[in-house]
Amino acid sequence: MEEGEVRTRVRYAETDQMGVVYHSNYLLYFEMGRTEYMRARGCAYSDLEKQGIYLAVIEVACRYRAVARYDDAIIIRTRVDKTTRATVTFHYRVLKEEGGTLLAEGTTTLACVKKDGKPRALPREVADALTT
Amino acid sequence: MEEGEVRTRVRYAETDQMGVVYHSNYLLYFEMGRTEYMRARGCAYSDLEKQGIYLAVIEVACRYRAVARYDDAIIIRTRVDKTTRATVTFHYRVLKEEGGTLLAEGTTTLACVKKDGKPRALPREVADALTT
Amino acid sequence: MEEGEVRTRVRYAETDQMGVVYHSNYLLYFEMGRTEYMRARGCAYSDLEKQGIYLAVIEVACRYRAVARYDDAIIIRTRVDKTTRATVTFHYRVLKEEGGTLLAEGTTTLACVKKDGKPRALPREVADALTT
Amino acid sequence: MEEGEVRTRVRYAETDQMGVVYHSNYLLYFEMGRTEYMRARGCAYSDLEKQGIYLAVIEVACRYRAVARYDDAIIIRTRVDKTTRATVTFHYRVLKEEGGTLLAEGTTTLACVKKDGKPRALPREVADALTT
Repeated sequence: MEEGEVRTRVRYAETDQMGVVYHSNYLLYFEMGRTEYMRARGCAYSDLEKQGIYLAVIEVACRYRAVARYDDAIIIRTRVDKTTRATVTFHYRVLKEEGGTLLAEGTTTLACVKKDGKPRALPREVADALTT
Repeated sequence: MEEGEVRTRVRYAETDQMGVVYHSNYLLYFEMGRTEYMRARGCAYSDLEKQGIYLAVIEVACRYRAVARYDDAIIIRTRVDKTTRATVTFHYRVLKEEGGTLLAEGTTTLACVKKDGKPRALPREVADALTT
Repeated sequence: MEEGEVRTRVRYAETDQMGVVYHSNYLLYFEMGRTEYMRARGCAYSDLEKQGIYLAVIEVACRYRAVARYDDAIIIRTRVDKTTRATVTFHYRVLKEEGGTLLAEGTTTLACVKKDGKPRALPREVADALTT
Repeated sequence: MEEGEVRTRVRYAETDQMGVVYHSNYLLYFEMGRTEYMRARGCAYSDLEKQGIYLAVIEVACRYRAVARYDDAIIIRTRVDKTTRATVTFHYRVLKEEGGTLLAEGTTTLACVKKDGKPRALPREVADALTT
């Protein structure tokens, strides 16, 4: 199970008056990581939704290790930690491109749901694709 | 046609590294103003959507006059400038509560659309409620 | 040690295409809760920063229990779980006003730092105010 | 004076319950366009701030032409429309990569200010770099 990687730059809008990235924005970086990880494994999340398969975040955790600033080039590394019958847990590390400093690491657990929010099983082919 | 008024406080997340509110957040304050203006006139936007009436922003303009900082108490004053067969233009002023300094003023024009995004007429009773 | 309480309404901007509040926005609700909790105890965070005392988020965790939608009136209940020499951990519950449904609960741990980001002790009077 | 170009993908967080990008997020795309335009001309905005030269947004305008959805690949094209003694006006077009549909176009005017927010002249070398 290989890690996925995506790069971006810190937007000015993502900073706060401490001069660093506001902490909630790391969850958006996680989302970018998850999106590219899934696309790279042939199950793009936008395609899943078209098939009526939704993944809803039910739990997040994040530890902040160092600060990122406006225009910093950052890397998000994503892997899947665990799948259950109806959930998948992703793990993320956000690094500064220059020097490779670890900025933050965390996890999100997503539950598989139908369009109406009701739980459903994670399709076997999705679970397989995500953990290969 | 009376102005509507709503109050809020600047969130830390809304500031940027210049130490002031990032400019795009004023559009969220405008949205708060619009939401309360409509509710006060008996046509809450959340009810309109339940009836299949959507208002999509097609144009915005904003001039920034003074800066707001974290935790500043602010007031959003909203009025309707104009309605056409299928659009409504709101005008907003955002003021600092202390001293009444004008922070920003602007307009948004919204087009009435169906759930699928196709244009439709603004219902007469909505236009009437908004301009009374 | 009493809980603090603050109320707000879900903004349209805070929803996503699933029709519910996007998960990272709960961290902004937590921030609102923390801000009002501190103000109510006489140590407004904006005043602390003026004295060179900064609180930087070093860890967050959140579990999502039910969905919130546009215009829902919500309540954020905040308490302090723990303080150490240089950190404070807040606990939050976000509830739907109508019916009191628990939407999310979580914690954030903040480290006391100087303007340059270097660690410093949490002043005794701040720790006392927060835990009374 | 050549246009600058930068590409990104719509984040899930940027959509709203209409299933499309929430309108204020286009101002963040504009900011991305501005950042890359300036970097490409040798006056990266992050470097300007280090020299005490700040550009504060004083006016924005945007027209929305078509909707963008989650995961759409988009292109932001940026040019400078005008400079005055103390301001610079950027013009932006946001396009869908697939098919080149125009999604939105707009302008932002930024005033050159000192760290304390007081106006100052736009340095000649910056004005020259931006308009070449």
